[in-house]
Amino acid sequence: MAPLITTTVAATREAVAQAKGRGMRVGFVPTMGALHEGHASLIRAARAECGFVVVSIFVNPAQFGPQEDLARYPRPFEQDVALCAQAGVALVFHPQPQVIYPPGYKTRVEVRELQDVLCGTSRPGHFGGVATVVLKLFNIVQPDLAYFGQKDAQQARILEQMIEDLNLPVTMRICPIVRADDGLALSSRNVYLSVEERQHATVLFRALTDVHRRVDAGERSAAALTQCAADLVAGTPGARLDYAAVVDWRTLRTLDVVSGQVLIALAVYFGPTRLIDNVLLEVKD
Amino acid sequence: MAPLITTTVAATREAVAQAKGRGMRVGFVPTMGALHEGHASLIRAARAECGFVVVSIFVNPAQFGPQEDLARYPRPFEQDVALCAQAGVALVFHPQPQVIYPPGYKTRVEVRELQDVLCGTSRPGHFGGVATVVLKLFNIVQPDLAYFGQKDAQQARILEQMIEDLNLPVTMRICPIVRADDGLALSSRNVYLSVEERQHATVLFRALTDVHRRVDAGERSAAALTQCAADLVAGTPGARLDYAAVVDWRTLRTLDVVSGQVLIALAVYFGPTRLIDNVLLEVKD
Repeated sequence: MAPLITTTVAATREAVAQAKGRGMRVGFVPTMGALHEGHASLIRAARAECGFVVVSIFVNPAQFGPQEDLARYPRPFEQDVALCAQAGVALVFHPQPQVIYPPGYKTRVEVRELQDVLCGTSRPGHFGGVATVVLKLFNIVQPDLAYFGQKDAQQARILEQMIEDLNLPVTMRICPIVRADDGLALSSRNVYLSVEERQHATVLFRALTDVHRRVDAGERSAAALTQCAADLVAGTPGARLDYAAVVDWRTLRTLDVVSGQVLIALAVYFGPTRLIDNVLLEVKD
Repeated sequence: MAPLITTTVAATREAVAQAKGRGMRVGFVPTMGALHEGHASLIRAARAECGFVVVSIFVNPAQFGPQEDLARYPRPFEQDVALCAQAGVALVFHPQPQVIYPPGYKTRVEVRELQDVLCGTSRPGHFGGVATVVLKLFNIVQPDLAYFGQKDAQQARILEQMIEDLNLPVTMRICPIVRADDGLALSSRNVYLSVEERQHATVLFRALTDVHRRVDAGERSAAALTQCAADLVAGTPGARLDYAAVVDWRTLRTLDVVSGQVLIALAVYFGPTRLIDNVLLEVKD
C-alpha cells in the first residue's frame, strides 16, 4: 500500500498520534532519500518491531560543508516512495528545507569530542548538523524506536550519546552494514563513482577484511593495522586515504593497543567522492 | 499535601506517566530552588491550567561560570519543599548533579546569536548551559506546559526560540515579574545583598520606571534612554552598571529607535552580586 506522504510538522504529528492512539509502536528511519538496500534493511528491522513505520526523506543542508555535494546529492523521490511502499512504510515525511529551518532558526546541538574526530576532522560542522536535524525529527515524529545503519558508525555513536545525554525517550537500533556482492558498502554516494572507481572502491572492504583477519590472528598494534590498511589504499589507482583509524567504540579515541569494543574505520577519496566503511570488533585479550 | 519527591529520571517519568494516564495535563516549573514568591507565582499559574504540577529543583553547574557563585548558591531544600506543598505541587524532581550529567556526558545545545548578547556578554556559556538543562528536563518530565519568569527575559526568549527550533511538544508561558514592595524584582540572589546594598538595589526598578515613563512621553532614542538609566545607576552608591540595553524582543538586537516589541534590560553589580531587571513594551508609532 502506498504510504501517506506528509510535508508539514502538524500533519506528521497528527498521523503518528492516530497510530499511537490505535496502540501501535512507532518505528522511525531518518534518511536523506536516494534509498537503497541498506535503507530497506533498516525499514525491515523497523517493520519487525513496530506496527507503524515512518521514513523521513530530507537532504539536510546543515550537515553539508560549503564545498560538499548538497546541490548534486541524488533526490529520486518517486523511486524512494516506491521502495517505501514495497517495504511497508506507513508514513513518509518529506519536508522542504524551510519547514525544518524556518527564517530566524538559531538552535544547534553539539556532541562534543565525538564530533571532532574521524569524519569530523575533514567535515567540520557535519555532525552538529546531523545531531540537530535528528533531534528535530525525533521531536516531530516522537518514535518509540529509531533505526540507523552501522555504515555511518560515528554518526550512530554520536546519536546514541545524544539520546542518552538528552534523556530522549527513544530506543536506538544500529543495524548491520549492507554490502554489494563484491563487498562495497551500499551508499547513496556510490552513484558518483565512475566504472573504474567503482571497481577500485572495493579496497575499503578488502582493507577492513585484511585488518579483521590480522586482529583474529593476534595483531594488537593499532599502528601496524592502520599501516596495513593505508598501504592497501595507497596501492589502489585513484584512491586517496582520508583516514584509517582504530578507536575505542564508546569514546572514539585512538587506541594504541586493540582491546575491548573497537571500531576500525576507513575513509577514502575517489576524486571528489568520499567513501567510508568500518568494522566493529569485540577484542578479548 | 506533601509533594512526591523524586531523584531519578525513571521515578520522575513513572509519576508523570501515571498522571497522564489519569488524563491530567502536566505543568512544569524548572527552578534552581531557593524558591520565593516569584516561583510561587509560576506554580500558581501552572496550577490554574494543569492538574499535575512538577517543580524541578536543580542548581545546574553548567550555567555557572568558573568565577560565579555555584558553591554558595542557596539550597534551602526543606523550605523549598514546604513552599511547594503549600502551593499544591504534585511532584518535586530533585536530582543530584551526576543524575543530570553522568560521567562521559558530552551534549550541548546552543541558541546562536540570542545567547551572545546582554547577559551572555558577561556570562559566556551561561545560556548554553541553561538551554541544555531545560531541554533535558523537558525530555525527562515531558510536560504539556512549562512556566518561566519574565525576570530572566533573555533566558525566556532563548528557551522560546529553542522550543520553536527543536519542535518541542511543549507550550511555554512567560509570567510577570514579581517585585518587593519597593520595586526590587525578587531573586534568589537578593540574599547576597548587604542591608545598604539592598536599599540601593531599587535603582534597577527606578531606572526602568523612569525609562518607561520617558517612552510613554514620546522618547524614541534608545541611546537617550540607556543614558538616563546609566546615569541613575552611576549616581547610586555601590552600584556598577553591567549593561543598560534597548533591544528588539524577538532578535535581542540593539535598537536605535524604540519601536515594536521592545525589551529594556538592565544588569547592575553590587559588589560581586549581579542583579537584573527588565521591562517589555509594545511601542506603537
